[in-house]
Amino acid sequence: MTGSQPSKTSGVTRCLAQFLVDSRFTDIPREVRHEARRSLHNWVGCAVGGSRDPAVATALAAVREYSGPPQASVLGRGDRLDIMTAALVNGIGSHVDDFDDTQQRRIIIHPAGPVVAAILALAEHRGAGGEEFLHALILGVEVECRVANAVYPYYDVGWMTTSTAGVLGAAAAAGRLLRLDATQMTWALGIAVTQAAGLRVHPGTMTKSFNVGSAAQRGLLAALLAAGNFTASEQGIEGTHGFAEVMGDNPRLSVVTEGLGETYEISYNTYKAYPCGMVLFPIIDGCIQLREKNELDPGQIERIDLQVNPLVLDLTGEMSPRDGLEAKFSFNHAVAAAFTCGAVGVSQFIDAFVQNPKIAALRARVTVRADPSTERDAAAIAVVTKDGRTLSVRIEHCHGSLAHPLSDGDLDAKFRGLVKETLTEDETEALIRLCWSVDSVDDAGMLARATVPADAA
Amino acid sequence: MTGSQPSKTSGVTRCLAQFLVDSRFTDIPREVRHEARRSLHNWVGCAVGGSRDPAVATALAAVREYSGPPQASVLGRGDRLDIMTAALVNGIGSHVDDFDDTQQRRIIIHPAGPVVAAILALAEHRGAGGEEFLHALILGVEVECRVANAVYPYYDVGWMTTSTAGVLGAAAAAGRLLRLDATQMTWALGIAVTQAAGLRVHPGTMTKSFNVGSAAQRGLLAALLAAGNFTASEQGIEGTHGFAEVMGDNPRLSVVTEGLGETYEISYNTYKAYPCGMVLFPIIDGCIQLREKNELDPGQIERIDLQVNPLVLDLTGEMSPRDGLEAKFSFNHAVAAAFTCGAVGVSQFIDAFVQNPKIAALRARVTVRADPSTERDAAAIAVVTKDGRTLSVRIEHCHGSLAHPLSDGDLDAKFRGLVKETLTEDETEALIRLCWSVDSVDDAGMLARATVPADAA
Repeated sequence: MTGSQPSKTSGVTRCLAQFLVDSRFTDIPREVRHEARRSLHNWVGCAVGGSRDPAVATALAAVREYSGPPQASVLGRGDRLDIMTAALVNGIGSHVDDFDDTQQRRIIIHPAGPVVAAILALAEHRGAGGEEFLHALILGVEVECRVANAVYPYYDVGWMTTSTAGVLGAAAAAGRLLRLDATQMTWALGIAVTQAAGLRVHPGTMTKSFNVGSAAQRGLLAALLAAGNFTASEQGIEGTHGFAEVMGDNPRLSVVTEGLGETYEISYNTYKAYPCGMVLFPIIDGCIQLREKNELDPGQIERIDLQVNPLVLDLTGEMSPRDGLEAKFSFNHAVAAAFTCGAVGVSQFIDAFVQNPKIAALRARVTVRADPSTERDAAAIAVVTKDGRTLSVRIEHCHGSLAHPLSDGDLDAKFRGLVKETLTEDETEALIRLCWSVDSVDDAGMLARATVPADAA
Repeated sequence: MTGSQPSKTSGVTRCLAQFLVDSRFTDIPREVRHEARRSLHNWVGCAVGGSRDPAVATALAAVREYSGPPQASVLGRGDRLDIMTAALVNGIGSHVDDFDDTQQRRIIIHPAGPVVAAILALAEHRGAGGEEFLHALILGVEVECRVANAVYPYYDVGWMTTSTAGVLGAAAAAGRLLRLDATQMTWALGIAVTQAAGLRVHPGTMTKSFNVGSAAQRGLLAALLAAGNFTASEQGIEGTHGFAEVMGDNPRLSVVTEGLGETYEISYNTYKAYPCGMVLFPIIDGCIQLREKNELDPGQIERIDLQVNPLVLDLTGEMSPRDGLEAKFSFNHAVAAAFTCGAVGVSQFIDAFVQNPKIAALRARVTVRADPSTERDAAAIAVVTKDGRTLSVRIEHCHGSLAHPLSDGDLDAKFRGLVKETLTEDETEALIRLCWSVDSVDDAGMLARATVPADAA
């Protein structure tokens, strides 16, 4: 681990804080704003869909009696909590289906989660115009992606960067809505780094999603304390015993500040086509294509051989998932689901489906070979049938990747699927319109209230 | 960083959780229980004293409007907050004067802070007998010290272990009071490790104390979630991408579990004689002795030469402190204060004293030499007077060290000094009696209420 860098990068926390305070919405290119709307749209759908998950109900039941006044909505539900508790619960809900966004220019991060969970609750309570709300979202994502890419190696050692860097993004975005001055913003970032936490030891449990909600809650707390002049180091990122030195592995501090305001990290955000890790997408794409093209019935399959990026095994090597949450981390479950159903959605990760003996039998027919030359959004799949045929396909860029992104229409369709058990059609279409036009509304908080079905409000 | 250890240490999280559930108060030796009372007593005095610090008022003002129902007291004040917010604020108050406890068998940690802040709020709200309360305190300290010593190197890299390990101690102690079963306890520890955070980048700012309060708050949240069956990894400490692998530097997992229930970490706790880092104590002892023995007036001093353990410079090398908080990390300020006042208490760390030009002039007359052969609780001081004399003293074990601890009477005197501006004499003596007899009361929560002056209640 290395400490401070050359003088040109000393003071990166201050430099970043100054940018956050000075940035103007009118400086941000039109296409960046549109990508921010897409990020928001995707996040809202995920959070409403996830609000039906037991992780949300369990967290809510555990913390409700300690919550403050009813300041902010739990998305998709009638409950109202204080803003920090709402940020926690909504952050959990937005990630629990593993259907959220992914930015992987360098390190993998799900950027909207901590940021939107924090600022949407804040906007609902304090009020925020749609333009400043979308602006804060863009800035929060900028901070977390830059910090993650500066501090962590290409493939990180076990930190869940959505949480460890996300807390800085949430603090920055909330701090912007709270109109912190530059010194207060350095404190907000300082209080954020001292709360930077989140381990990848929890796949298949509720705590994986807790990491996202917790980053939102802690980042919001950082901004609120800083707004009240609670002091912190002004060199939280680069200082001795600071974020980069302690949590980094050969950090490159210049990445935090170089070209700030020239490019925007949110431009590189992508949205999941399937509710699981993006590393599984090329496999799922390929299996669905093979099934459709060859009218394959799972009973005809002798063996399925995969050639994949090594990350697939690192992230989704759970070969014998016992329930839906574990199945999210099982590449062979993704294969079995795709061949059995011809589609992979939330239904393919419910416990009963995962525990079905026919699915388990098909999972057992999958073999895998990790190949470093296969890109993350690519895969090769070969099926050997019981009658001796070999059918194969190669996916170069999976659906949901930067090269083959979900269209705005795809996002709408995904959204409708996610919220269909929660909202009426009219409520759904109104909410979709609101996501696409958020920066033209006077009160961004209405977005949160619009996720609550009329009969639960 | 190394990952999992041999099979005998696999499952240390489960093993630790089982111990926490099975431990009986009657198994704990009498002298260990007494040390726990001393730890509690010292902590309560610090928290009441610290409640007058701006850090507490600032945090309280920032978070009050988001707090839940009035479930627990802010010590020394009339405010009542939900238990997690109370834990945060009381944890801040207990550390802000740097007058709390120190355990340094291996790594330096202030063990009572996160644990007592969490369980006292919980006891006040849910009710807890004095015996189970003291028992939970002992177990919480056991967890945090063992985990810190297992995972961190002798001198850690920048983590504030009071926070990063303290969150596990708080979760364990709160989990015990909540009567978690063994599986729930593994989840509580798992939710704790994923919140393990706290950087040493903040000396001289309010966020240094925030780290302690935050660990209490986060640990309490972990226990409450686990009590509601919010799931987490059951290998949070030893698992792949878990606490030891990610945050450790050559972790020795056997240290977590070996000899559990045979020795108790709280036995090695020590209590500060002066409100600053313990590394300054031998210097302060020596300066006070030289001043008294030689009836030295600061005006007579030409130069003061120190020979100290290298940690003195690492931890307290701030040569030109600008305010009271920075002066806590200034070895030459400690010297100037001791020679000027003949005593070092909270008054010697107020801003006006630190900014006094006479004190600054005396600070400038101090030189230092780091000597690895000088123990942490030792120092040599030599004063050269303007009339050419050299007066010297060597301290082998400073007051407040394990070899020369504060007596029970010293703790009472320290307590009286800390609370004198907050409580009446009658209130003070009643509170002292309560600390010494906590395990015989039916309701440990009364301890918190007894810290609130009658006119603020």
